[in-house]
Parts: sequence; C-alpha cells; structure tokens
Amino acid sequence: MDRTFSALADPTRRYVLQRLSDEPGLSVSELARPESLKLPGLMKHLDVLSDAGLITRTKSGRTVAVSLSAGPMQEAMEWLGRYERFWTASLDRLVALVEEDDAP
Amino acid sequence: MDRTFSALADPTRRYVLQRLSDEPGLSVSELARPESLKLPGLMKHLDVLSDAGLITRTKSGRTVAVSLSAGPMQEAMEWLGRYERFWTASLDRLVALVEEDDAP
Repeated sequence: MDRTFSALADPTRRYVLQRLSDEPGLSVSELARPESLKLPGLMKHLDVLSDAGLITRTKSGRTVAVSLSAGPMQEAMEWLGRYERFWTASLDRLVALVEEDDAP
Repeated sequence: MDRTFSALADPTRRYVLQRLSDEPGLSVSELARPESLKLPGLMKHLDVLSDAGLITRTKSGRTVAVSLSAGPMQEAMEWLGRYERFWTASLDRLVALVEEDDAP
C-alpha cells in the first residue's frame, strides 16, 4: 500500500494512468508525445508505476506497450472508504449550519 | 492531491489516522503510547499529515489534541473511483475464466 500511495503522489504518474485508462496499450513514445515529456524522466516514472503493480509493459520488437493494472488501486480505495463517514459527517454539519443560518 | 497521497504512503501515518478515527481528539502522547513511537519521529509525521490537511492540532495548556480531518481523502477517493471499472473488469474476466474451466 505504501508503494501504491507513493506512486500516486506525482502528477505525471497520475497523468500516465489517466491516459492509459483512455487508450490502453499505448507505446512509451505515444505516452511521451502530447505533453512532450522527456523520455528518461518518463521511464523512471514508468518504473515506479510498474514496481507498484499499477502498469504492465509488454515488449514486441522495438515497441513497448504499456497497460493499466488497476488492482492495487482497489485496496487503496477500500482503505480510504473506511473514512467516508468522516467527510460525510463534516458535510452534514456544514449543511445544518447553513440551514440554521437561513431559518427565519 | 500530491500531498494527500504522499502523506498516506507511510504505515505510521496511516496508523495515526486510523487511531484518530477510533478515538478523536487524542493527545500526542496518547498517540505515541501503545506502539511506543518515538516522539520526534511522531511529530514529523504529524507535520506531514497537517500539511496535507489530514489532521488539525489544538493546543490547550500543555496538551495538544489531534483530530482527523478527512476532507482531502474524499478527493483522493474520487480520483481512484474513476478506475473502478478497470479492476471490476479484471475480476469479471477472472470469474468468466473459472466458469469456463468448470464447464463440462
């Protein structure tokens, strides 16, 4: 779980995951193109994502296809889900406060 | 979001959040006790959690009470929620595979 959260704590890595969810099996160079990411930096980010089990890489010839592997996110989301009642509670209190204010 | 995920990427910090969800308003020394955490290390973890907006600290006299502030977790969970269909899809494929195997 440390590795999952740590991998998600970077905007470039979250961008990569988002692109892979829209276009599965993108090559590394396709991933780099639209944001003109530098390849060495991108490769390091892909290593972090791969170590966290969030992507898989498949080499065929000279092309490396990257795919999303969302499994570890499930555990992370379940962990966060335990706290859902706390932010819901804060929202409820806020709504109550606003309604109180509105009362004649 | 970087700060939220980064703060959650440490087991001691996740332990602190979990304890605060069970016992809101614990003092720093109460937080340190059961796992005999060292105070300087714990203070640094609390700084990280506070910077990420995940806890609030209230000083009264010599005691600092710590409370959970779950708001930032909501955004993190919403981000993860976008990928839910991917792990559900993998599970569906797995179930289909097992059922195929079971077929006479």
